[in-house]
Amino acid sequence: MPNVTFSEIKSAHTRILPYISQTPVLESSLLNSWLGHRIYFKAECLQKTGAFKMRGALNMMLKAKQEGRLGKEVVASSSGNHAQAVAYAAKVLGVNATIYSAQNISKVKAAATQYYGAQLNLSETRKEADQKVQEAAQQEGVLWVPPFNHEDIISGQGTAVYEGLQQTGEVNAVFAPIGGGGLISGSAVCAKAMFTNIEVVGAEPLLANDAAQSIRSGVIKSLPAQPITLADGAATLSVGEKTFPHLQNLDAFYEVKEEQIAYWCQWLQHLLKIHVEPTSAMSMSAVIEWLKNKTSPQQVLVVLSGGNIDYKKMQQIWQHNHLEHMPSLELLSENG
Amino acid sequence: MPNVTFSEIKSAHTRILPYISQTPVLESSLLNSWLGHRIYFKAECLQKTGAFKMRGALNMMLKAKQEGRLGKEVVASSSGNHAQAVAYAAKVLGVNATIYSAQNISKVKAAATQYYGAQLNLSETRKEADQKVQEAAQQEGVLWVPPFNHEDIISGQGTAVYEGLQQTGEVNAVFAPIGGGGLISGSAVCAKAMFTNIEVVGAEPLLANDAAQSIRSGVIKSLPAQPITLADGAATLSVGEKTFPHLQNLDAFYEVKEEQIAYWCQWLQHLLKIHVEPTSAMSMSAVIEWLKNKTSPQQVLVVLSGGNIDYKKMQQIWQHNHLEHMPSLELLSENG
Repeated sequence: MPNVTFSEIKSAHTRILPYISQTPVLESSLLNSWLGHRIYFKAECLQKTGAFKMRGALNMMLKAKQEGRLGKEVVASSSGNHAQAVAYAAKVLGVNATIYSAQNISKVKAAATQYYGAQLNLSETRKEADQKVQEAAQQEGVLWVPPFNHEDIISGQGTAVYEGLQQTGEVNAVFAPIGGGGLISGSAVCAKAMFTNIEVVGAEPLLANDAAQSIRSGVIKSLPAQPITLADGAATLSVGEKTFPHLQNLDAFYEVKEEQIAYWCQWLQHLLKIHVEPTSAMSMSAVIEWLKNKTSPQQVLVVLSGGNIDYKKMQQIWQHNHLEHMPSLELLSENG
Repeated sequence: MPNVTFSEIKSAHTRILPYISQTPVLESSLLNSWLGHRIYFKAECLQKTGAFKMRGALNMMLKAKQEGRLGKEVVASSSGNHAQAVAYAAKVLGVNATIYSAQNISKVKAAATQYYGAQLNLSETRKEADQKVQEAAQQEGVLWVPPFNHEDIISGQGTAVYEGLQQTGEVNAVFAPIGGGGLISGSAVCAKAMFTNIEVVGAEPLLANDAAQSIRSGVIKSLPAQPITLADGAATLSVGEKTFPHLQNLDAFYEVKEEQIAYWCQWLQHLLKIHVEPTSAMSMSAVIEWLKNKTSPQQVLVVLSGGNIDYKKMQQIWQHNHLEHMPSLELLSENG
């Protein structure tokens, strides 16, 4: 500790800048007015491939290329945003990519991954896919790009907050979701280096609270089975040994109920007019809880991690009418 | 005819520029690749108050102010995007606004309208609200801002395409939805003045096809009752005598089935990662039909008119899984 430095995040940013979108920071004047605080949203759902995952994958592959370690092929196991990120990055860098997925990968995500030119290798289960990628990675000239548990991935993901804080200037706190922990780890290293008094706060689904359990117990805990949560981007079974030390240093973390995830997903789609995925919207519940103790107006930066939502999730998000209940600090304390 | 000139659209743009967002033009590389054509989207859903309606309302009020005709109050009748636009414009210009709406206005739209400081006057029916606004407009110092049937509204709405075509350069065609006809009228005047060979194409819900009926018969036809369509922004009972001549000069227009509206709403939300309302997405069905006759790659500009969608509409949009069927010119000819 620390396994990632601010200087590495800045280098990562320089490295990936030609290939990524510098996503905008958005605000809702209605939301700010209702809460009495200023909420900035770093819209990584507008990033290429629809998620921040591009940043880490590109950084790891570009760094390998610079150091002569990038062979002819990259491999990854993922059924989600990481798959598309690796496929896209491989296309940009002109190397082959094979993505190992469980066969229940959504048709839309499979099509996008294949559109970027990646081979899709489907297994019965995710566990099997994870085994296959490890075997594939043993081959000569094959680089394995893991989803979060690697220094180059962590520093790549940190570039979202590096950009965001340059766009906003100093804020009181940065919020990000916790899946495997790559995004919040990079965010924490970056934010703490840029501003001394800034807090870094994580959000996790209550139904997939392995990170919270791990932080409380001081050792990495794994979920016994794949959790079913709206926030599928944060449904990772356990964090990694490279991300855990960063999680232990968070200023706060919150476990969010499913109803709150749906509530904020509806409201952020409505107020910001962007297609925010549940994992991203979840952080707003943490923002509300965190704001309750504050006696002066705060400014916070929320990393909207992605915008890839399949049909079933959209139906679940919009199952009940949450737009009837306007956001406010009081209202939400009852439901929080 | 013409009741609006390109010069007036340029003046309108100069007038409103300090108060509006210069919305981005977006593209989806996946969509372009699947269709073999290049589709540009002018994202007016990211406009202030979530719709292009800001442009017309602001232009009319600012012009009145310049000419000393803006009194202490503006009035409008609307339950939708026009209500919020007038309320916001009034706030910006420091005048009072009263919005006359039917009492079935959604809670969310009512709250947004009131947040901007407007008085909300609710009637049993929309017809009653329309009568009330006419009475209110008789009073000294009160300016009535109609939703579409006015030269200053038409030239204000035309500024979206003025900006869009500056962002894209020359394209083969411009597409916009037809409600009362304000947007497409302004778009047509602007596009034809900027590029000689450009086509201007309209889209309308088949279930609210008063414009198509009017164009076919040569006289303005009214729908007998309020139509129920996903594309509520295009559910106007009839076009106006100020917009009709422009509609008669369109290069093409298409009547779109509800299933196609839902299809494109899902796909545009998914591909562009923005919260596109059905009225906006509808134009893509016209694009597909129009492209079928083309033998060379085309570039088109689609005006995404807004992004204000209530809970019920979101449920209707996502009722069936349209993301299973990838967009293509062939696939859609069967459903078109």
